[in-house]
Amino acid sequence: MQKEEFEDEANPDKCELTSYEKSSDPLCIFGTGDLGRSLGLRLLQTGCRVVYGSRRPHSCGPLPQGAQVMSHEAAAKAARLIFICVHREHYTFMETLAPYLEGKVLVDLSNNLKKDMYAEANAAYLQRLVPGATVVKGLNTLSAWALQNGLLTGKQVYLCGNSAEAKQAVVEVASKMGLTVLDRGSLSAAQELEDFPLRLFPEWRLPLRVAVGLAAFFYFYLLIRDVIYAYVEQGKDISYRIMVSLANKVFPIVSLVMLSLCYLPGVIAAFFQLYRGTKYKRFPNWLDRWMLCRKQMGLVALGFAFLHAIYTFIIPIRYSVRHKLISRMKNNKTTPFDFNYTEAWGTDSFYVLGILGFFLYVLLGLTSLPSVGGSLSWREFSFIQSKLGHLTLFICTAHGYIYGWNKFLRASTYKWYTPPGYMLCLIVPSVVLVLKMLLLLPCVDRTLTRIRQGWERAQSMETGENKATNL
Amino acid sequence: MQKEEFEDEANPDKCELTSYEKSSDPLCIFGTGDLGRSLGLRLLQTGCRVVYGSRRPHSCGPLPQGAQVMSHEAAAKAARLIFICVHREHYTFMETLAPYLEGKVLVDLSNNLKKDMYAEANAAYLQRLVPGATVVKGLNTLSAWALQNGLLTGKQVYLCGNSAEAKQAVVEVASKMGLTVLDRGSLSAAQELEDFPLRLFPEWRLPLRVAVGLAAFFYFYLLIRDVIYAYVEQGKDISYRIMVSLANKVFPIVSLVMLSLCYLPGVIAAFFQLYRGTKYKRFPNWLDRWMLCRKQMGLVALGFAFLHAIYTFIIPIRYSVRHKLISRMKNNKTTPFDFNYTEAWGTDSFYVLGILGFFLYVLLGLTSLPSVGGSLSWREFSFIQSKLGHLTLFICTAHGYIYGWNKFLRASTYKWYTPPGYMLCLIVPSVVLVLKMLLLLPCVDRTLTRIRQGWERAQSMETGENKATNL
Amino acid sequence: MQKEEFEDEANPDKCELTSYEKSSDPLCIFGTGDLGRSLGLRLLQTGCRVVYGSRRPHSCGPLPQGAQVMSHEAAAKAARLIFICVHREHYTFMETLAPYLEGKVLVDLSNNLKKDMYAEANAAYLQRLVPGATVVKGLNTLSAWALQNGLLTGKQVYLCGNSAEAKQAVVEVASKMGLTVLDRGSLSAAQELEDFPLRLFPEWRLPLRVAVGLAAFFYFYLLIRDVIYAYVEQGKDISYRIMVSLANKVFPIVSLVMLSLCYLPGVIAAFFQLYRGTKYKRFPNWLDRWMLCRKQMGLVALGFAFLHAIYTFIIPIRYSVRHKLISRMKNNKTTPFDFNYTEAWGTDSFYVLGILGFFLYVLLGLTSLPSVGGSLSWREFSFIQSKLGHLTLFICTAHGYIYGWNKFLRASTYKWYTPPGYMLCLIVPSVVLVLKMLLLLPCVDRTLTRIRQGWERAQSMETGENKATNL
Repeated sequence: MQKEEFEDEANPDKCELTSYEKSSDPLCIFGTGDLGRSLGLRLLQTGCRVVYGSRRPHSCGPLPQGAQVMSHEAAAKAARLIFICVHREHYTFMETLAPYLEGKVLVDLSNNLKKDMYAEANAAYLQRLVPGATVVKGLNTLSAWALQNGLLTGKQVYLCGNSAEAKQAVVEVASKMGLTVLDRGSLSAAQELEDFPLRLFPEWRLPLRVAVGLAAFFYFYLLIRDVIYAYVEQGKDISYRIMVSLANKVFPIVSLVMLSLCYLPGVIAAFFQLYRGTKYKRFPNWLDRWMLCRKQMGLVALGFAFLHAIYTFIIPIRYSVRHKLISRMKNNKTTPFDFNYTEAWGTDSFYVLGILGFFLYVLLGLTSLPSVGGSLSWREFSFIQSKLGHLTLFICTAHGYIYGWNKFLRASTYKWYTPPGYMLCLIVPSVVLVLKMLLLLPCVDRTLTRIRQGWERAQSMETGENKATNL
Repeated sequence: MQKEEFEDEANPDKCELTSYEKSSDPLCIFGTGDLGRSLGLRLLQTGCRVVYGSRRPHSCGPLPQGAQVMSHEAAAKAARLIFICVHREHYTFMETLAPYLEGKVLVDLSNNLKKDMYAEANAAYLQRLVPGATVVKGLNTLSAWALQNGLLTGKQVYLCGNSAEAKQAVVEVASKMGLTVLDRGSLSAAQELEDFPLRLFPEWRLPLRVAVGLAAFFYFYLLIRDVIYAYVEQGKDISYRIMVSLANKVFPIVSLVMLSLCYLPGVIAAFFQLYRGTKYKRFPNWLDRWMLCRKQMGLVALGFAFLHAIYTFIIPIRYSVRHKLISRMKNNKTTPFDFNYTEAWGTDSFYVLGILGFFLYVLLGLTSLPSVGGSLSWREFSFIQSKLGHLTLFICTAHGYIYGWNKFLRASTYKWYTPPGYMLCLIVPSVVLVLKMLLLLPCVDRTLTRIRQGWERAQSMETGENKATNL
Repeated sequence: MQKEEFEDEANPDKCELTSYEKSSDPLCIFGTGDLGRSLGLRLLQTGCRVVYGSRRPHSCGPLPQGAQVMSHEAAAKAARLIFICVHREHYTFMETLAPYLEGKVLVDLSNNLKKDMYAEANAAYLQRLVPGATVVKGLNTLSAWALQNGLLTGKQVYLCGNSAEAKQAVVEVASKMGLTVLDRGSLSAAQELEDFPLRLFPEWRLPLRVAVGLAAFFYFYLLIRDVIYAYVEQGKDISYRIMVSLANKVFPIVSLVMLSLCYLPGVIAAFFQLYRGTKYKRFPNWLDRWMLCRKQMGLVALGFAFLHAIYTFIIPIRYSVRHKLISRMKNNKTTPFDFNYTEAWGTDSFYVLGILGFFLYVLLGLTSLPSVGGSLSWREFSFIQSKLGHLTLFICTAHGYIYGWNKFLRASTYKWYTPPGYMLCLIVPSVVLVLKMLLLLPCVDRTLTRIRQGWERAQSMETGENKATNL
């Protein structure tokens, strides 16, 4: 399909259309709204001829320069491929056009405003209205805004339909626009495709729920242990600590637990493979689901670590901290305040581990940016996410252990016989690190590597071509 | 077009060229400079045959392995498509080649060193020199560096020309190199295309100007109110505050105003649509321009917020702050310094709101990274930029209000009868938030949603197929 | 090639296969492991027909819906293109299939577990086993994980082979999957391609080595000057400073030196060009290598600057700092502590320059993200990396100079006759800035600009078409 000479300056002598070009079909668009206009503009820019079908061809508002406008009937006749940029509610007019749409490919780009608004997918409804045409559902994740601003390059779009030929024709047009098309099968997948643009962070839900749950639990736990305990047992009102001090205890706890939850499923999966002696058996569903949201878990953990860092930076400018410093000096004027070397080494190590951990955390976060991760080789990516990730977990766990280095054995730590929050939060990371260390034992590691290369314990006698490269 | 066997190790027996391949045209490149060589290398890598045209075919320096070098005449004869990688100043030699260029497609990749160096576009000049050839302007945003380093994938390039057929031939070659091509119409767009590589952040100019203007205004305003006032009225020299304290007042002010200016046009646009009862009328030009630079406004605001955060973190290590703390303790030794619970709650809330605001700010900034934004669905993107954006504005505004919570009614706040800077900077955000709240009233929201779905008040009686899906 | 109707819901009446489609070859995959299955799934999604060849067609585990499984012989007969997703160790079975593979294109996707495991490339070995087939090595940088998750769009893959026709056939299939293919020449490049997935940050090695070397040197230098000097000469034990104070001196030093090393090669290259009077001569190898890792140098420098910033933020909450503040107040109670205006201005300028430098640093780092850098025009990119980069270097160097503003002439600065670390680290940046200033002198700049536009001193009399556009 070739672009028409639609600019005034076009020199007709210079444009010798070949027979191929003359015969090339235009593309038809039904609907002159935002999406229709943007799609038409983009198609014209990729060098296609565009014909709009409109009920009111002479008063349908501004259309992209170079496009023709006709009645629906004439437009349908002229083209083989018709893009339907019309709301589902107005589909009925196409029933009357059925004779003109016979044998045409109708590309249904429509979306609904809510999930499950209609029992039948828009595309299936359209196919029922115009049984003589071939309906392809797809490209519906494109927005008018992205089309207008040329933000399509490399974007992945989906389509489905019953006719392979019809889908291929749509794929060709989409490729010209710089889109990559994924075929999702027959028209029965239309409902699923129509739900795509309505998705709201589905893969973030589980990690966010876990994070909110953990944060709420530890918040109340620490509220009772710190604020309420001080009020009940010592009669002190330290409720002002709720805002910053308490939060700055909860954030690192949640961050560390989430980070370890991000590496736990990998370890569990390794033990499953070791136990079963093969990698070809599917993991249980809960593990699969867990493994699929590891990236999001890690990013939520990074968010909490980021908050923890900023909360820590502002400690010295807080009113209560400065007040404490000043009042301490006034009251304890006489007490000599000797320099404690162990304390100096301890707190400095604590801070250094925290900073290094945060630095590695940020590095892990950066490599999970699509454009950075995409430029890494598979070995580089796994080096960062596995080696560097476990190192981060190790350093952050050590940061937690040093925090409580001299408090573990003090009775006053266990107010109301409860362990402090940082002890609770060290359990999961410690378990993950111990399990990971078991997996790194040479004998275990060797078996696991072989299993991951396709070796199976049960059939280890057979060699076979069905062990594929697993890189 | 097939790649030649140009490596020594190539086994000629294995390469059975089909008739199609044998007849395939090579691509010709005029100019053996950086761009010419890089382009040739890239074309060879995508499997095309490449022929260089040179005045000195035997002494034109190192060319990519596998390419042939000929005289201009011979090279022009061999190819249908000729890439002109030559400076405009040397175009004259092509006039003498005109008979050989008859009917050929000349792709003009040239750029100028400055804007408006020549009244006539390079491509138009070339077309005038060789009227028998078909000139296509394009691919001129590619750099030799990007070509050599294979950084083309998914890159968007532009072209224009009068012949649809010629443009199609260039598009095919560009697609092979992984480029996405946008057709900008006839050759009269060449001047515009030649200006593309010379652009220097056009969309950042307005936001940066606004930021510099706001920063300068508030800086002088606060200089007068703080430093000069103290000097004139109290005889104190606090000019050392200019470097950090003053800047740390100006940065959050500019940041907050810029953030609200980033959401103001959306609110204004909504009121325009409500007033007009349709979304199909164009907004005034100033509003369009404003809306197009919202992203940049927000990023500039984030930059100021980032500076504000770091300025705040270093407060306690500044000499003047530490001096004040120490001298305060010495001078006021006798005054009892009671713990003020309201003050503790107030400052902590102030910090917490600031930190949360900054956290959301950074989140907004991250989603405006091309690779992150591109991986979001339309609904997710609008959720973040609209819902989370307004929440950020709300939190940052509250941060500002709490800063002055107990100062609004104090007479000493209004030095020389001027309000302090933070009061001035709260005006615009408060207005935006109030207007946004009005828009969220159920009755207003319902009308606006219908308008944005294509409903028009004037013609609401008609149903029609010309209401397109508006996603 | 068209996708088969493999879903139950497919309506056979609607799918009128044209003669073209009926005759389209399926693609064959040998190997039903992870990679084979993922590749097949992706090929099916792009609308190709897929046939698996397996030794045990009836018990080869779950394969993607829509694919057929046959014996190796039958599968090889059905297809022209065969993807080999099998470990090299199992290649031998293909020798027996040789008659069936005559004239077929075998795409070898295999990788090895280690570099140089075999003297002969897998692809060359395969070609030797089946001399009648045409082997193409390629796509081996794809992982099963990326294939399954549709992360291919815009990804660059490599291939090589002796037959241009065979490579073209593979390119067509790869393009359908959204991949961009780079042809690396004949099959002799196979070894190189097989090493690609095993690369581990090759371009980061030099910068990291330089960084580790610098950090180690300055760490020991400062350890001797600070800690050991204090112990030997003053008998004070300040070893607790090793963790934070010392590191916070080393980090900014390494960061500044790395940043200047990132701009030094550009300056050296300019002087080379000025001296030689041409840009067409190659730089010495060491300079080329250095220039290629400038981005990584800068990012490592940013990492150290980031650590320096965080180490600085936590200064006031460190035990030793707080102890010093308190003990100072107690011991010097009587000494009046006057406000020193020079000190206040000096330290504030010091902090402001540090903050601005860090801000610009982060900006430079952001533009080196692939997705951000890719959206900049060439002029914008060079504006940021050159102008803003040198400004950052200037500000950071000034930050270093102000740190020692009143210490340069003090004898006590030169403990054991050694200069302090910050003096050493200012040498390279100062040299780079002076050289850069020389290059910015109008007369030098003009000559350099002309050379970079292709002008040559030796041949400046000739005009010629061989001066290509250099943008």
